[in-house]
Amino acid sequence: MPINTESIMIPDTDRESSQPLDLSRCALAVDIGGTKFAAGIVTELGEIVSSRRIGNPQGSNPEELYDALTDVIDSVLHAVGLESDQPLPMPAVGIATAAPLDRDAGTVSPVNIPAWRGFPLRDRLVERYGLGVRMFGDAVAVAVGEHWRGAARGRRNVLGMVVSTGIGGGVIIDGRVVPGTTGNAGHIGHISVDPFGPPCVCGGIGCLEAVASGTSIAGWARAHGLDVPDAGAVAAAARRGDPIALATFRRAGEAIGLAVAGAVTLLDLDVVVIGGGVAGAGSLLFDPIADGYAKFAGLGYASSPRVIPALLGGDAGLIGAAAVVLQPDSYWPHA
Amino acid sequence: MPINTESIMIPDTDRESSQPLDLSRCALAVDIGGTKFAAGIVTELGEIVSSRRIGNPQGSNPEELYDALTDVIDSVLHAVGLESDQPLPMPAVGIATAAPLDRDAGTVSPVNIPAWRGFPLRDRLVERYGLGVRMFGDAVAVAVGEHWRGAARGRRNVLGMVVSTGIGGGVIIDGRVVPGTTGNAGHIGHISVDPFGPPCVCGGIGCLEAVASGTSIAGWARAHGLDVPDAGAVAAAARRGDPIALATFRRAGEAIGLAVAGAVTLLDLDVVVIGGGVAGAGSLLFDPIADGYAKFAGLGYASSPRVIPALLGGDAGLIGAAAVVLQPDSYWPHA
Repeated sequence: MPINTESIMIPDTDRESSQPLDLSRCALAVDIGGTKFAAGIVTELGEIVSSRRIGNPQGSNPEELYDALTDVIDSVLHAVGLESDQPLPMPAVGIATAAPLDRDAGTVSPVNIPAWRGFPLRDRLVERYGLGVRMFGDAVAVAVGEHWRGAARGRRNVLGMVVSTGIGGGVIIDGRVVPGTTGNAGHIGHISVDPFGPPCVCGGIGCLEAVASGTSIAGWARAHGLDVPDAGAVAAAARRGDPIALATFRRAGEAIGLAVAGAVTLLDLDVVVIGGGVAGAGSLLFDPIADGYAKFAGLGYASSPRVIPALLGGDAGLIGAAAVVLQPDSYWPHA
Repeated sequence: MPINTESIMIPDTDRESSQPLDLSRCALAVDIGGTKFAAGIVTELGEIVSSRRIGNPQGSNPEELYDALTDVIDSVLHAVGLESDQPLPMPAVGIATAAPLDRDAGTVSPVNIPAWRGFPLRDRLVERYGLGVRMFGDAVAVAVGEHWRGAARGRRNVLGMVVSTGIGGGVIIDGRVVPGTTGNAGHIGHISVDPFGPPCVCGGIGCLEAVASGTSIAGWARAHGLDVPDAGAVAAAARRGDPIALATFRRAGEAIGLAVAGAVTLLDLDVVVIGGGVAGAGSLLFDPIADGYAKFAGLGYASSPRVIPALLGGDAGLIGAAAVVLQPDSYWPHA
């Protein structure tokens, strides 16, 4: 069935709304988070034409989860006039997934999705949709998305970070994402910010994630007497002026500032972009980050402030996943 | 005057000693350290054909220092049958210099050479020798030298470090040196390894250099009652079993291990090469580095040991300076 691209209009302000959509120049993007599945059709300008997001189903059956994911994907295809049992015009599928993943084997084992352990996601999607699949970490996807179309657009040397349940990131050097020897570069959540700090689940000591993730923020606030279920509640308490909540965010933010100062000093970066749920606390987090940065970035070239909030919000993962398909020279150096 | 290359033989085991030297494929390399000037002629295989080194003259006259440097350069030229007032066959001059330097202006202001403040070294050498000049930091040069011809040969993702009076380094990603936005990438000596650590001359707090440089090692040992002039004396005391000296090296080594673990975790590096005078202490330093690394590198891809000693010793700077001339695609991405 030929695709009737004439009938599909783009609901975006960046281009003429009467311009037809060329799906052969779009990416099918998938974002697998610890708590959500999302899929979208993304244009070469980084516009999301069609997208859908669901909280991922709980349960222990890997096939049920897979069916839920393909339902999401099929629905965004359907919205642009495509069906999964027909040849698709997009060049490839980009998948941003919660860690860990095995890039070579094409399998995923997201920590918060226990039903998927070594699940062969890449091959299953290749088989179903007849497209190549490029799969990489969700935190790297956010860094890539923010570099391609967000807060770090046009900058050459960038660290993108996600401060959420955990802390992850991605590094861009000379405009290209850094994969690292095993495809794992970007894990800023697991660099130590305090040799006498708390033990980390990774086996390290004083890791940034063990101090400043949403989980760690809530845990530290509780340990100091605040009755809160999560980091959002700590932020709410801080906005009411609660001193323990404020101290919790100060401790977390200064630790982020130290880690970021180290990365900027080592790599001489232009800018650090921070997104994720905890970053939604705004100045509660960004003010102590700026103070920590100023305290620990002493050398001249690194000392001016350069930590900024992400712009793309929850769309960053989809846009990053699309970027590896549409801008492979910059964002898919794995090949 | 044509160069009689027939008469010049290479005193190296890596190639036939009867092979004539093609000076048009050699670099003129210069290494300006805090306490020495060195120059050499380096072949495309990284062999030093002719070299000379002097302790740099003290004093406040910038021209006297410059004359001393050009004497050193002229003597290595003379040794291969060249004279500075004749056209030189080498493609360019590579200069590794103690920091800081202003790459754009072509000036140097080495901390330990107070007579040179904003000294226009690049333009002076261009004028005198009629060759292009590529100038960069001496710690980056060591990283480049060790990557090109030393301990990190053939590895794609590398941190090279110098632990000496201060601590510096250089980062190689995907086989290319990382310059950073302002040409300052590699300063691992100024990332904080302890938020409650000693203040650093750079203005930061708990910088690796403030804990583990030769200067800091000697200072900490003295502050704990050991009567020593420098880090070499601390190492000698440690070899005699002095508990304060041993504790000094343990503290410094573990701090280096923490910093290196962070760099490997963030960038997913293959190997970290450590040279410099303090690294000459051998296992006194490398054993606690390994312990610190194991303690702070928790994630699977980063956890196996990968810190190794440099191989090139005092020649690394000259060989790195030659590499930016002879292998510009990898080592001179500034252009």
